[in-house]
Amino acid sequence: MTFDLVIRNAECATATDVWHSDIGISQGRIEAIGRGLAGARREIDAEGRLVLPGGIDPHCHIDQLTSQGLRTADDFASGTISAAFGGTTTILSFAVQPRGESLRRAVDEYHRAAEGKAVSDYSFHMIVTDPTPQVLGQELPALIRDGHTSIKVYMTYDALRLDDRQALDVLDLARREGAVVMVHAESHDLIGWMTGRLLEQGHTEPKFHALARPAITEREATHRAITMAELVGQPIYVVHVSGEGSMRQIAEAQAQGLRIFAETCPQYLLLTARDLDRPGFEGAKYCCTPPPRDQDSQRALWRGLATGIFQAVSSDHSAFRFGDTKGKLAFGSSAPFNRIPQGLPGLETRLPLLFSEGVGSNRLTLNQFVALTATEPAKIFGLYPRKGTIAVGSDADLVIWDRDREVEIRAEDLHDAMDYTPYEGRMGRTWSCHAAMLYVCATNSWFHLAAGNS
Amino acid sequence: MTFDLVIRNAECATATDVWHSDIGISQGRIEAIGRGLAGARREIDAEGRLVLPGGIDPHCHIDQLTSQGLRTADDFASGTISAAFGGTTTILSFAVQPRGESLRRAVDEYHRAAEGKAVSDYSFHMIVTDPTPQVLGQELPALIRDGHTSIKVYMTYDALRLDDRQALDVLDLARREGAVVMVHAESHDLIGWMTGRLLEQGHTEPKFHALARPAITEREATHRAITMAELVGQPIYVVHVSGEGSMRQIAEAQAQGLRIFAETCPQYLLLTARDLDRPGFEGAKYCCTPPPRDQDSQRALWRGLATGIFQAVSSDHSAFRFGDTKGKLAFGSSAPFNRIPQGLPGLETRLPLLFSEGVGSNRLTLNQFVALTATEPAKIFGLYPRKGTIAVGSDADLVIWDRDREVEIRAEDLHDAMDYTPYEGRMGRTWSCHAAMLYVCATNSWFHLAAGNS
Amino acid sequence: MTFDLVIRNAECATATDVWHSDIGISQGRIEAIGRGLAGARREIDAEGRLVLPGGIDPHCHIDQLTSQGLRTADDFASGTISAAFGGTTTILSFAVQPRGESLRRAVDEYHRAAEGKAVSDYSFHMIVTDPTPQVLGQELPALIRDGHTSIKVYMTYDALRLDDRQALDVLDLARREGAVVMVHAESHDLIGWMTGRLLEQGHTEPKFHALARPAITEREATHRAITMAELVGQPIYVVHVSGEGSMRQIAEAQAQGLRIFAETCPQYLLLTARDLDRPGFEGAKYCCTPPPRDQDSQRALWRGLATGIFQAVSSDHSAFRFGDTKGKLAFGSSAPFNRIPQGLPGLETRLPLLFSEGVGSNRLTLNQFVALTATEPAKIFGLYPRKGTIAVGSDADLVIWDRDREVEIRAEDLHDAMDYTPYEGRMGRTWSCHAAMLYVCATNSWFHLAAGNS
Amino acid sequence: MTFDLVIRNAECATATDVWHSDIGISQGRIEAIGRGLAGARREIDAEGRLVLPGGIDPHCHIDQLTSQGLRTADDFASGTISAAFGGTTTILSFAVQPRGESLRRAVDEYHRAAEGKAVSDYSFHMIVTDPTPQVLGQELPALIRDGHTSIKVYMTYDALRLDDRQALDVLDLARREGAVVMVHAESHDLIGWMTGRLLEQGHTEPKFHALARPAITEREATHRAITMAELVGQPIYVVHVSGEGSMRQIAEAQAQGLRIFAETCPQYLLLTARDLDRPGFEGAKYCCTPPPRDQDSQRALWRGLATGIFQAVSSDHSAFRFGDTKGKLAFGSSAPFNRIPQGLPGLETRLPLLFSEGVGSNRLTLNQFVALTATEPAKIFGLYPRKGTIAVGSDADLVIWDRDREVEIRAEDLHDAMDYTPYEGRMGRTWSCHAAMLYVCATNSWFHLAAGNS
Repeated sequence: MTFDLVIRNAECATATDVWHSDIGISQGRIEAIGRGLAGARREIDAEGRLVLPGGIDPHCHIDQLTSQGLRTADDFASGTISAAFGGTTTILSFAVQPRGESLRRAVDEYHRAAEGKAVSDYSFHMIVTDPTPQVLGQELPALIRDGHTSIKVYMTYDALRLDDRQALDVLDLARREGAVVMVHAESHDLIGWMTGRLLEQGHTEPKFHALARPAITEREATHRAITMAELVGQPIYVVHVSGEGSMRQIAEAQAQGLRIFAETCPQYLLLTARDLDRPGFEGAKYCCTPPPRDQDSQRALWRGLATGIFQAVSSDHSAFRFGDTKGKLAFGSSAPFNRIPQGLPGLETRLPLLFSEGVGSNRLTLNQFVALTATEPAKIFGLYPRKGTIAVGSDADLVIWDRDREVEIRAEDLHDAMDYTPYEGRMGRTWSCHAAMLYVCATNSWFHLAAGNS
Repeated sequence: MTFDLVIRNAECATATDVWHSDIGISQGRIEAIGRGLAGARREIDAEGRLVLPGGIDPHCHIDQLTSQGLRTADDFASGTISAAFGGTTTILSFAVQPRGESLRRAVDEYHRAAEGKAVSDYSFHMIVTDPTPQVLGQELPALIRDGHTSIKVYMTYDALRLDDRQALDVLDLARREGAVVMVHAESHDLIGWMTGRLLEQGHTEPKFHALARPAITEREATHRAITMAELVGQPIYVVHVSGEGSMRQIAEAQAQGLRIFAETCPQYLLLTARDLDRPGFEGAKYCCTPPPRDQDSQRALWRGLATGIFQAVSSDHSAFRFGDTKGKLAFGSSAPFNRIPQGLPGLETRLPLLFSEGVGSNRLTLNQFVALTATEPAKIFGLYPRKGTIAVGSDADLVIWDRDREVEIRAEDLHDAMDYTPYEGRMGRTWSCHAAMLYVCATNSWFHLAAGNS
Repeated sequence: MTFDLVIRNAECATATDVWHSDIGISQGRIEAIGRGLAGARREIDAEGRLVLPGGIDPHCHIDQLTSQGLRTADDFASGTISAAFGGTTTILSFAVQPRGESLRRAVDEYHRAAEGKAVSDYSFHMIVTDPTPQVLGQELPALIRDGHTSIKVYMTYDALRLDDRQALDVLDLARREGAVVMVHAESHDLIGWMTGRLLEQGHTEPKFHALARPAITEREATHRAITMAELVGQPIYVVHVSGEGSMRQIAEAQAQGLRIFAETCPQYLLLTARDLDRPGFEGAKYCCTPPPRDQDSQRALWRGLATGIFQAVSSDHSAFRFGDTKGKLAFGSSAPFNRIPQGLPGLETRLPLLFSEGVGSNRLTLNQFVALTATEPAKIFGLYPRKGTIAVGSDADLVIWDRDREVEIRAEDLHDAMDYTPYEGRMGRTWSCHAAMLYVCATNSWFHLAAGNS
Repeated sequence: MTFDLVIRNAECATATDVWHSDIGISQGRIEAIGRGLAGARREIDAEGRLVLPGGIDPHCHIDQLTSQGLRTADDFASGTISAAFGGTTTILSFAVQPRGESLRRAVDEYHRAAEGKAVSDYSFHMIVTDPTPQVLGQELPALIRDGHTSIKVYMTYDALRLDDRQALDVLDLARREGAVVMVHAESHDLIGWMTGRLLEQGHTEPKFHALARPAITEREATHRAITMAELVGQPIYVVHVSGEGSMRQIAEAQAQGLRIFAETCPQYLLLTARDLDRPGFEGAKYCCTPPPRDQDSQRALWRGLATGIFQAVSSDHSAFRFGDTKGKLAFGSSAPFNRIPQGLPGLETRLPLLFSEGVGSNRLTLNQFVALTATEPAKIFGLYPRKGTIAVGSDADLVIWDRDREVEIRAEDLHDAMDYTPYEGRMGRTWSCHAAMLYVCATNSWFHLAAGNS
């Protein structure tokens, strides 16, 4: 037996196990896990290091045209390089259907945007904004059969949202065709009404973004989305849960045996609405949707991660440069909160932050970290068993971590296209390697170049 | 001291007390409660009888034009006579604004329909279907100041519903002006989608009415209505709760200190969806919205009455004759379920059924019966202290009950304009006078003729 | 018609109604409620005043021998005078069976202690400490038939507690004989274990009293008591609930339809465990069992009062003078926390405090105030309809309140036998008459002298 | 690289992964997992078969002296052979301290009983019945340090139970010394009282065993055990949960972040209290403690397995021969229910039944099956990573399953010492191999002979 590469003496972990061994890799796949593997053409000594499944980021926005006519800052080159430096080896981005246009064409275009640029694996969730008979009857079934098996439904945003009947049509189609449906659950009308009230009263600063979208509006939409899923008999995956109320709706549904999946993001675990209230336009850096909440919410979400209510932590990387007129400044530094381009960067910091604050602070086990960042997303989105674990036959998407290295996060050190990070200056605060920055290099052969929709 | 009338030797009850005494009445008001009251111009001996506050039916549809272009069967003569024979001395019916028209004019028209016909007190909730700036800015505030202080919002029915932003506008106005908002909480889009699916599959019989509106769609809309109330900081009153899921949403909101009121109706305590599956068109007799559920729901609702989740039991009397081409047959005996005129008669049977099944079966105390059928509705809708209790200064709206009389309910004995009752043949099943039919006569002077909006 | 006394022009309230009228009284009973009542031998003008049912304090310890060999500070003279000055016209104290002795004899002795001293009505709950076959088979059934219909079971205190089998025997007897069972629910063994640990570590100061009895020990015993009630099919009344956990256990049981009643006390609504941490021995003034908790608990309990989880607010008046070697100093000023005589005075301040902080702060309606302090206790303990309301035929136990008077609470102004009050210096903080001190005088004839066990 | 044994072409599963590969084993440990492993001294072809981690039965009673003076039917030979034929390769039995005697001596005796007899791995939980200062201060700490790291506390049974203070002492010691505490949670006093009542009334048949121990008594003790765990800050493992009420107590504690673990058993998933009501003494076959409940409980428990409330399914194998005067007949065939030796056999049927009814009926995934029967018990009781998974370095405790084989369970085919099985005649009811009987043979070298306390 010979291997293209053997990683030696690694402390390996999956979502359930931790062990020491070598890992033998050939043609980008794991061929053997064992001690003293012979026949290596090339070797890396991982003594003293952790080897984990490469992170899967199930939710990020790369080179995406927004409803405001902007484009998110990262293309598939900077996005996947940044992801890889943050320990993420597969990203799931979005292909968004413009209203009135073909979904198939949109998917094709996003594939073209990624081809030749991405340095890691990637795929696309399809954002259906216009479920015409043509889309529901022909394009979507064909796309699903071609392997584009996940659909995202927005319950808010004028340019993206489906109304509830359309959402039910999509859920029903997904049930028949075997696709996964992600839901952005916020109450369009309640938020629209609150926004109107606030603007009428002249409340335009970034901090009002949080007041326009209070946690109960997320809870309402989550309850509604769950009811639709229950009505149709189709599982859903609720994205970027920020509030305890929504989390409890999800937990109750799960306790009744419904298949409701959910993710949260580092911004909801680590930031609060007070970050939006920084002086001047500085708060715009922290404007994302839904907005960060408060410390009680953070505690609740951490408990939800530890007790299995959540299956994933995504970045929801949706990056707009702060000092850029095609970014946060697109509508000026006194743009009202509802015109500020929404979103935060987070591809590269997702895993270091979660490792440091989660594993390092004993809120999560190492196994839970792997489950939340790789295995469960892979299973939910159909990437498993090729992705998301360390097992014979799986892709050798492996990340070597140095637990002992403590790193200060600085925007200038990151590899995305951004000019800021909301986590500037954060350090690990326990024994652990905070920010355990990854050791792997994207040029290593086992970190093979990407092919769409693995 | 002299009295127009003294009721002697009565066993009286309020929502909290039970006692024996005379009641002295002058000019339609209770002047004294005491033993051996002297000075009566006229006397009624109520020895061995119960004297309770006259029932208040907070939810019935009299002489109302429906969205299908029909008119409900009872006018204010038959409606109030029937109510009175059932122990109800005040009814709250509806004045519905046609889309595109004036709410003020609608209120005036309904007043005209009642004047000179009603034999009991009555008032109107205003159904707002078109909250234009004119309506919100001028008509509604003026109407509220004139004493029309309750508004009903429909979350479903094409011709009646407000969307969520409109509903928020109405809630906000009610908060500012001090009105009460009733909500018909069913998910318009979810029901519309289910209805479409069922009809596509050729499922048109009455029983599919229940499948098109499953209990979870009521739960969803209830959660949404509560969220809107919470957002605005305005109490709501949820009408005709039929399912346990909705009831639990209400109970949770109450436990958090929100002011959410709710009613249920005899049809949800005594009928089930199986009644809709009777042979031929017979099921149409039991078609009402929301539909009756199952025995588990019934048990849950009785528990909700006993434990204070509900404040009221209304009839939701919305009567269409069964054998009438202006009634249930309006669209033929093979009309699909969504075209069958929806609603049941219940004005006259509401109290006898609730007394028999509630007090007679030891599910409710006599005090709770009074609270649910008179006192609490009076307090919520601003009729208290004139209505809803037996107290000095209150209107002498009194009903004398004969506990010992057992009566079989038969449509031919009832005083409404109907040709059927969904409770045909029901008997009391305990020691008590089932159907304890009332003893009072509408011609007695203390059962004074009606004035609008008392 | 003539009356011994007519109270004129009163604003009266029951648990459900509020009205203006005269009240006509003869031979200590309410004979008529009406306007312009003629025939008064004597009159009081209550214009501008509230007239409420006299308070019933369902839980206080008067002239009681404690398990530490002490006697509570108030006898039936000072106790009932103090109660009356606080608006309470009926007290329910305790007759405690010494282990190994006759319960009947104990009841007789406590009656003797009260006779001739009490200026208000009173009765006794029987504390069963030794349920021998003689007690269960003969004494208790006979006492219940004689009208001593309530029994208290302690789950803690070495000298008083029943083990669970004994408690079940008492519950079962109460079910058969038709008595009410009050339960002091704290975990004897858990508290004993914690106390041992704390004392071993030298933690003896008053503040450790709260640590020795954490809220979860009350929750545990409450759950156990409810389970015993459920097993036997006998309602219970849980005394002095202090923590949110216990309250939730009670609320869940009620929601399932179990008949579980509960009270809380002003000390749990207004004090916290921090009061026990005052310098020196000062904390001993606030030592009662269970101990006051924290502000979150206070908020939860207020919500529980408003939403009907609690039926009563009692004083649990158990008074030991602070500067007295037969009081708090009985075992010295450095007595370890578990030897400090436990209990607070509160008979006279119960209603003024609850009125001010409850009704005055809009946490409770006037009707809820009456229900919690008079009507519900009267109903639960069999005093109704003689006590607890304003109705024809009921005892004229009436209290006239002056809403406009603001009073500072000072120990020296109170009428009990105490040298301190835990509420020294408290003032009303809203528009209302804080401490709306009562206007009534114990010498008025309608405030008739006491007879046992009315 | 050479291996003592290579299992070829297996479909392998852990608690998270499923893959196909060979497994290379040397000296009883897994050395490599890979495809085409060379260097095998011996091979087994597992093509078409599942290879799973050997089952760990965390709760069974082997060769144990009971409080009635009997001995459970299986010794360590028949017990471990039976376990192995049922796919279980490690059993955790009990060493019970007789009151008044040394725990160390008891542990030694049970070791002697197992040595030379057991054909699989085994260890002992220590049942502490007499926590004297000697035991708490010296024996237990020393035993824990020797690797006997789990303690069982009984809350019921006169001969075994600890009172709550003793239980707290044991929990506190476990916290300090780092041991695991299992709790048998049933209310001793409530059950004793009910038993007394039933026997007084002449209710002695086996079916009354279920009435004497209603589900609420398990719920009560579970709540109490959780409170004790919370007080001390020490996790517990609740054994043989049978009722939904207990399960909910556990779920709520987990949701609050408490570390409460729990198991259920096949008898609570598959039998009901009606099985105890079979004619004559036949019901005694199904008498175990706690008793089986009803179908609602079964459904709830299956949901609890699927949603992660339970970490394990144990057998609670506690076997007494039915037709044996040292077994169920020890006190005659008309022994009252409380004298019937309690317990069911289940070592050999645990995994086949759970596989068939769980995996085969789509209630559990294959990964969940592995987690519940091997991985989680191994982690909780300190056997991991040597036991409970398939990973490099772990013991080669592997079981080969034939999914396609359908088997009828018959007592005569089982390998325990019993003359009956409560599951006689059960068949798989889905596509799957019901009873997927294992393929492995206990004499294979990788199924190495046992050493205590691995």
